[in-house]
Amino acid sequence: MGTIDCSLFFLEVHESEIPWLKIFVRRPVREFSKCTAEEKTAVWNALDLIEREMLTYYHPDKINIASFGNMLPQVHWHIMARFKEDSYFPEPMWGEKQRESTLKLPPMEPLIETLGVKLSSAFC
Amino acid sequence: MGTIDCSLFFLEVHESEIPWLKIFVRRPVREFSKCTAEEKTAVWNALDLIEREMLTYYHPDKINIASFGNMLPQVHWHIMARFKEDSYFPEPMWGEKQRESTLKLPPMEPLIETLGVKLSSAFC
Repeated sequence: MGTIDCSLFFLEVHESEIPWLKIFVRRPVREFSKCTAEEKTAVWNALDLIEREMLTYYHPDKINIASFGNMLPQVHWHIMARFKEDSYFPEPMWGEKQRESTLKLPPMEPLIETLGVKLSSAFC
Repeated sequence: MGTIDCSLFFLEVHESEIPWLKIFVRRPVREFSKCTAEEKTAVWNALDLIEREMLTYYHPDKINIASFGNMLPQVHWHIMARFKEDSYFPEPMWGEKQRESTLKLPPMEPLIETLGVKLSSAFC
């Protein structure tokens, strides 16, 4: 699966047992508060849209969102659909492994296709 | 240190070796996309303000932001000032401990006081 390219940001799939997307701000910027108002709004709207589409498509137990960038100091956000059966729940995906995952999820391609259409018509 | 109370959200200090605040949406709501437009804007503006004040006051190496809620499914956001010398850097605070912290930070009270004034005049 490729990326989704918008003018202010792009989206990447993070390979994982769970549905996990990353939004990268395109302009080199280290902290989110240093983004322009347009970049902030675009990212918040994209996170909101992705969360809603993930909830509809996967019916997860929880959505998780995070922006760290300690290793890669370029503003990027993680958004993940979490399930009671995934390997880390209820820990964050960066926490201690809890079990072997027994997740069976539908393919991600239709979600990415929907996001591509909705993001490009709204925010790209 | 007490909380900072606004109409749509409140702020709590999370006891930690690092500066760590939590923003709780006041209305019972499980996922951020289910918040009202006013709640979302208030939280984003508060995160933006807190990040800028933390950068000015502590000069951290990175700001980290996260919203999980897997254990406590009530929308809340974590915002943390991270330092190369803290116990977990560059891992998230939920990751593996890297070292014994040698952090020496100024007291948090002046930051909380500033945030109280600026939040209440802007978003509370």
